Amino acid sequence: MQSCARSWGALLARAGGPLSPCRHLSAKTRSVGKLSCGVATRQAGGPTVRCLGTPAVRCLGTSVVRCLGTSAGRSSRQIDRMLPRHDDFAERHIGPGEREKREMLDALGLESISQLIENTIPEAIRMSRSMKMDDPLCENEVLDFLQKIASQNQIWRSYIGMGYYNCSVPPPIQRNLLENSGWVTQYTPYQPEVSQGRLESLLNYQTMICDLTGLAVANASLLDEATAAAEAMQLCHSYIGVQTVLKLPHEMDFSGKDVSGVLFQYPDTDGRVEDFSALVDRAHKGGALACCATDLMALCVLRPPGEFGVDIALGSSQRFGVPLCYGGPHAAFFSVKDSLVRMMPGRMVGVTRDAAGKEVYRLALQTREQHIRRDKATSNICTAQALLANMAAMFAVYHGPQGLKHIAERTHGATLILAEGLRRAGHRLHSELFFDTLKVDCSLAAKDILERANQRQINLRAFSEGVLGVSLDETVTERDLDDLLWVFGCESSAELIAEKMSEREKGLMGSPFKRTSKYLSHAVFNSYHSETNIVRYMKRLENKDISLVHSMIPLPITWREFSNLHPFVPLDQAQGYQQLFSQLERDLCEITGYDKISFQPNSGAQGEYAGLAAIKAYLNSLGQTQRTVCLIPKSAHGTNPASAQMAGMKVQVVEVDKDGNIDMVHLKALVDKHKASLAAMMITYPSTFGVFEENISDVCDLIHQHGGQVYLDGANMNAQMMGSKGLAHATEVAILNANYMVKRLEGPYKILFKGFVAHEFILDVRPFKKTANIEAVDVAKRLQDYGFHAPTMSWPVAGTLMIEPTESEDKAEMDRFCDALLGIRQEIADIEEGRMDARVNPLKMSPHSLATISSSSWDRPYSREQAAFPLPFIRPETKFWPSISRIDDIYGDQHLVCTCPPMEAYESPYEEKRASS
Amino acid sequence: MQSCARSWGALLARAGGPLSPCRHLSAKTRSVGKLSCGVATRQAGGPTVRCLGTPAVRCLGTSVVRCLGTSAGRSSRQIDRMLPRHDDFAERHIGPGEREKREMLDALGLESISQLIENTIPEAIRMSRSMKMDDPLCENEVLDFLQKIASQNQIWRSYIGMGYYNCSVPPPIQRNLLENSGWVTQYTPYQPEVSQGRLESLLNYQTMICDLTGLAVANASLLDEATAAAEAMQLCHSYIGVQTVLKLPHEMDFSGKDVSGVLFQYPDTDGRVEDFSALVDRAHKGGALACCATDLMALCVLRPPGEFGVDIALGSSQRFGVPLCYGGPHAAFFSVKDSLVRMMPGRMVGVTRDAAGKEVYRLALQTREQHIRRDKATSNICTAQALLANMAAMFAVYHGPQGLKHIAERTHGATLILAEGLRRAGHRLHSELFFDTLKVDCSLAAKDILERANQRQINLRAFSEGVLGVSLDETVTERDLDDLLWVFGCESSAELIAEKMSEREKGLMGSPFKRTSKYLSHAVFNSYHSETNIVRYMKRLENKDISLVHSMIPLPITWREFSNLHPFVPLDQAQGYQQLFSQLERDLCEITGYDKISFQPNSGAQGEYAGLAAIKAYLNSLGQTQRTVCLIPKSAHGTNPASAQMAGMKVQVVEVDKDGNIDMVHLKALVDKHKASLAAMMITYPSTFGVFEENISDVCDLIHQHGGQVYLDGANMNAQMMGSKGLAHATEVAILNANYMVKRLEGPYKILFKGFVAHEFILDVRPFKKTANIEAVDVAKRLQDYGFHAPTMSWPVAGTLMIEPTESEDKAEMDRFCDALLGIRQEIADIEEGRMDARVNPLKMSPHSLATISSSSWDRPYSREQAAFPLPFIRPETKFWPSISRIDDIYGDQHLVCTCPPMEAYESPYEEKRASS
Repeated sequence: MQSCARSWGALLARAGGPLSPCRHLSAKTRSVGKLSCGVATRQAGGPTVRCLGTPAVRCLGTSVVRCLGTSAGRSSRQIDRMLPRHDDFAERHIGPGEREKREMLDALGLESISQLIENTIPEAIRMSRSMKMDDPLCENEVLDFLQKIASQNQIWRSYIGMGYYNCSVPPPIQRNLLENSGWVTQYTPYQPEVSQGRLESLLNYQTMICDLTGLAVANASLLDEATAAAEAMQLCHSYIGVQTVLKLPHEMDFSGKDVSGVLFQYPDTDGRVEDFSALVDRAHKGGALACCATDLMALCVLRPPGEFGVDIALGSSQRFGVPLCYGGPHAAFFSVKDSLVRMMPGRMVGVTRDAAGKEVYRLALQTREQHIRRDKATSNICTAQALLANMAAMFAVYHGPQGLKHIAERTHGATLILAEGLRRAGHRLHSELFFDTLKVDCSLAAKDILERANQRQINLRAFSEGVLGVSLDETVTERDLDDLLWVFGCESSAELIAEKMSEREKGLMGSPFKRTSKYLSHAVFNSYHSETNIVRYMKRLENKDISLVHSMIPLPITWREFSNLHPFVPLDQAQGYQQLFSQLERDLCEITGYDKISFQPNSGAQGEYAGLAAIKAYLNSLGQTQRTVCLIPKSAHGTNPASAQMAGMKVQVVEVDKDGNIDMVHLKALVDKHKASLAAMMITYPSTFGVFEENISDVCDLIHQHGGQVYLDGANMNAQMMGSKGLAHATEVAILNANYMVKRLEGPYKILFKGFVAHEFILDVRPFKKTANIEAVDVAKRLQDYGFHAPTMSWPVAGTLMIEPTESEDKAEMDRFCDALLGIRQEIADIEEGRMDARVNPLKMSPHSLATISSSSWDRPYSREQAAFPLPFIRPETKFWPSISRIDDIYGDQHLVCTCPPMEAYESPYEEKRASS
Repeated sequence: MQSCARSWGALLARAGGPLSPCRHLSAKTRSVGKLSCGVATRQAGGPTVRCLGTPAVRCLGTSVVRCLGTSAGRSSRQIDRMLPRHDDFAERHIGPGEREKREMLDALGLESISQLIENTIPEAIRMSRSMKMDDPLCENEVLDFLQKIASQNQIWRSYIGMGYYNCSVPPPIQRNLLENSGWVTQYTPYQPEVSQGRLESLLNYQTMICDLTGLAVANASLLDEATAAAEAMQLCHSYIGVQTVLKLPHEMDFSGKDVSGVLFQYPDTDGRVEDFSALVDRAHKGGALACCATDLMALCVLRPPGEFGVDIALGSSQRFGVPLCYGGPHAAFFSVKDSLVRMMPGRMVGVTRDAAGKEVYRLALQTREQHIRRDKATSNICTAQALLANMAAMFAVYHGPQGLKHIAERTHGATLILAEGLRRAGHRLHSELFFDTLKVDCSLAAKDILERANQRQINLRAFSEGVLGVSLDETVTERDLDDLLWVFGCESSAELIAEKMSEREKGLMGSPFKRTSKYLSHAVFNSYHSETNIVRYMKRLENKDISLVHSMIPLPITWREFSNLHPFVPLDQAQGYQQLFSQLERDLCEITGYDKISFQPNSGAQGEYAGLAAIKAYLNSLGQTQRTVCLIPKSAHGTNPASAQMAGMKVQVVEVDKDGNIDMVHLKALVDKHKASLAAMMITYPSTFGVFEENISDVCDLIHQHGGQVYLDGANMNAQMMGSKGLAHATEVAILNANYMVKRLEGPYKILFKGFVAHEFILDVRPFKKTANIEAVDVAKRLQDYGFHAPTMSWPVAGTLMIEPTESEDKAEMDRFCDALLGIRQEIADIEEGRMDARVNPLKMSPHSLATISSSSWDRPYSREQAAFPLPFIRPETKFWPSISRIDDIYGDQHLVCTCPPMEAYESPYEEKRASS
């Protein structure tokens, strides 16, 4: 009965789970050491230390299904024949039907899927017992079940603050962005020609962050505020192991020139607005950088950090229209001075030009990233909270500068009224300069105040005996203020208090902290304030991007019982979430064979870091502090080496053999060489080469024998999940699909590491460089003309393409994809055999945008049809068009622009219309 | 506080309100007379008799806002300055901002909007008092308020049947169709070149209905089952006033040859499956037609009506994946024998070809419709439940024939088990041949059974003392069956009962009623069973259509508290709905100045009919049965004459003068001529010519003086809604927008009825026929190339275009639209002045599909750019492309095909791929 709900738990736990460190300065400094992640380990006997965070699969939709499957077997009950079970959720998710599976097996010359699995997955590592998981439910049963769970969360009014604020999610944004699979399912925009929509929105986000913080460049978001704080400190000090010290501003001593950076919060967690300009000056004079954690809403009325010399600003953009969701996910922002741009962690969108000379967008400065500089990377950040950053950006687009100022002033006004009422009731405020947060020494027993708050279902922040905190936000109404005044024992009403407040009590507006500089003056923030316009704008962007346009079931994260919960409410208000967490933990322990799970890591890379940090702590607890060497095979994920280095380990690369397996001879030699200092080995399993290694057990034994621990990267774990019939089907089909595609493509193409593959395989296009001057990028871009998003390029093997069809594609779609690749192979042959020009040909000129195809001028040695409709299934009425020509990356990195370009690049306004009218 | 909620009430009442007559035969026969609509009237002294049904505005989204508005005035409270009200919902809906409004007023040479209103709306008809409506709420407050209301509806398990069944709405369909503004907001597909998506889906619907009922042609749905039944009887007897008699089948006497048709139900409301073939034969021999009300799910396993000679089949397609929503809206289906196709009421999608010879879809046989044959029409049906029909069609596409059969067999299996249990418990079944419904003579006191049902929150149907009904459906689980058995006092469980049932107890499957013919064998019902595929298919269709892509707030109709409520649950389970109805009634009475409201009519046309029927009944009650003449001005809606004739009145057309006002001289003459027989006058106000008539009061007085009543068609009522400041703003802006557009277009174009217009105006393009051989249709199709959906064509004045910008468009969009029309005017001038060929030119060849533009061959006297990108704001990356060339209506009507064409017309399957691979 509960299996699906548990799977949904996975989703919800991903969406709402991790209790990111709060806006507390102290919490942040703790997280700089990145030990905020608790990781449970099986320390002896077991083959690996495993950090969960990684099992979270790539897209939200998929995470649901991976834990579902077909029925465990045929029932013998008569009632099951008369009243058979409902529609099978897993079947709906799995592309190929029975007939198609048969056809694919025939093509592979196999009798059955079991035979395929026997040929693919080493006997030694197949699980023989079945897993203890309940029968799957149909989709509607899942929703009913979740409804019951949701009703166990209680939605009180929370004025706790600490980095999380209630906000009004604009309904057109919720509906057309957050709940729209056209936005939700997108992958990283590695192919800018078919990602201009998302890239434009992320550029809006960066522009907004730059404007509000007063700094020159911003990235496209980080995972959460704690990560941002840690990355800021890491940027300050370029080597690993930075010591972080907590001091009051006046205690900071920069005279020793041994301080690399200082991090402060403005306004701080107590609500206080303080003048940090002297501190910043002192830091600079001492050779240190100044980092400021701040609040976007406050900055709408408050002097921005960039204006008093701050080098790095960071924070959470949650309150810009993103639901609380019990703590996440929310996009963290991160902006820096111009001089620091090439040291900035994370993704950054930049402006460049395409082959036609048009101004376009793409990920900038990718050469900083781990998958390029691998073992030299010092940051393992390889992802962003793009969806949530897009929500926040659209919030600013929808409200515009006036609207944001209105919201900020309103929030501040409410706080001024409350402050006045509290003073009248005899309470003492810790600070007279605040934006939205008051820290209160209570004149009455705080217990009575909290009791009255409970009566009205209001959550406050409890600092310590007699000291309470209240943080207001844009949702606060007059009635809320009246309730708060009553809670604090003030006998007056908000209306009466306001009536008697003089005009001069303007709070920040009457202080030197008042913001005087303009922000968000770009046209994009001043054009889409009506619902019609914002929806059309979002739709216009959406339609430029290839997306899965594919979602499993309506995401319950937008149900108010899940979305409106502050992360620091008392546990008894969050029973629904707690139930999801515990059920998910039980299932994941069952699937992985471990004893405990940590839901803390917010990404796969953070999971790696947390796992290695746990191994390090475990080894240290045994007194083996000398163990610092981490072995990583070439076939591992690119973030592995970066994570190992961040955890203070030294990376040693293990070679792989021609079949993609770990080179055991080399491994043994390395283990022998480093046996005294061996800390860990990291393995991605099955590997990114798509290979199940039969000797995985030998590897683990070897490491354990020499006192090390094994970390297993489970990003490909779905293809490992083989024990239970209830989980097997999806995996079987994923493997079948991959092998079927290999069968169709081998011959015309060279496949790396032949034989039966796991769930992915590598197409080797390197030979074409010599024969036709064609490279992987040409094939990838040409695939866009055929209507497909390119597979992963040049990774894990440079110059190749890695293809992972997954179980959700049906045979017809896979056949079309193979047809496209075979069509491209034919085009390459045309070049090889001199029938097509080696310089101007459909591959080199790809992708072909609509503007190119529909232009009067056409002087190419191939037809418009060959360019745009190379196979019969690509038709004008259904074709997805790249919105631009091929991107020029080098130009963009040489002429770095990471905020919205001037408005001429945008849709012509009325003024531009032709003179005749 | 409650104003918005009341407005939402309007929406919800529209969505869920009307208690359509049930599946009962008797209820249907009542509705044949179309007096199921209760209409409250102000019978003396008041100016009009008014039927509400019409105020429902055109699109769901809009209906919300029309009742909202800006704040009634500036507050003087200090707190309102410090804590100003939230974001203004109406402002978000209204396109132009303050600056734009000022610019438009300047262009019109006006000081203020008041001045415009004074010039537009006659003093005599402006309301001077303000309306009693509360302050508006912001969107999120509306949602909170609705949440509270929703929680007052109780969702019990309802097994009441009577035409309404629980069903599982497939989540991908709910999310990507029902909750997607790309599907929800579409208007009638009058422009097939930009509506191929919806048209294909509706053709799927028609194909599904034909297959399941076994008849040759079906329409694209009707409003509800009762309407379908009435239309069936009307079709049988071509003159008005058909006498409907309720008889048992064996009592039917056709010998007098005076029977035009017979309507029966199969399976009937008691659940009985009966053999009607003899009755059908007798009817045919007696010269009558046979009509069968039936159930789509039953027909998946039951011999279809078409196979035993039935001429017309009809029913509701609700249980094909459409939520109950307390009774509606749901799509009714209607299918007929081939010979009856040209008499079929309602919309029908047909196959034809476009200018390029491609097989395409469009509305077929439109010449049958009222707006073409106006006063000759005998059906006023001018709309369909397209959205709900599309949901039902996608349900069939998603499940396919196997899936539907599975659901039907499962439902029947559950009913067989329950029947066996009831027999064992000593109850007597009324019939041994049933599909999903049992009528039960209870051996125990029915009171006790109902009491136990209440304990388990189960609703049953109570026929009469001791007789209960149970209708099962696809959602029933084993646990539900166990509960039902317990309720009926059966001591066994479903599992045990099933265990002891022998294989031969196969119910319908073992009877002559078992369906043997295949259905849904077309490829479209056999290709999209995985979630990936169904979502991609829906998205592919969606992207072919111009839509508003514009929605106000997430529709709460998909909240389970609104969607899962059976219409015949006890009132105390529907308190939420009741509250919405009463609040809506209060608001609408306030707005219209009437005393009572009927929510019964399901469309504007039904409202007209109900209003006239009420007038007729009122006059009859006064003994004035001779009053049968109905006066209708030329400027009235096209359905008016049809409704009047259906209500048994004789239509007399009143002329209008050159300004579009009623010709008072002609009116007076007509009134004088018919004073003894004058029943009513119908007025559309403001008229479809966009004119507010100053003498409306005189007209009303004149009619009243002569003993008649006035019916006012409020389809344009939003522009009348002028009393309250809270409602005024949207209307003011709609009028401003229309006048601004007139200002920009007059000169180049001739505007009919000049001067200040109301909310719409008429562009007279008739002169171009002579000067350039250009007609309204050429302008309309050419507008598609400019990215706009054509305005209403040839109505209300043949050969013209009627333009209604509404308040939600901003100035920039209106300017683009004007630019497009001015660009087209320039293109016409090019023809007039000989610069462009009179036969092959951008207008005559429009619209230009992508296939045309991207083809290698181009031999036209104008460029590809001029064809596809005639103005700078039309750009390749954002252009909306007509998916086909110009439609050939005549060909389609001559070669009528109204089901899915053979599958070659669809996407090439893998087999079609080119030989090289």
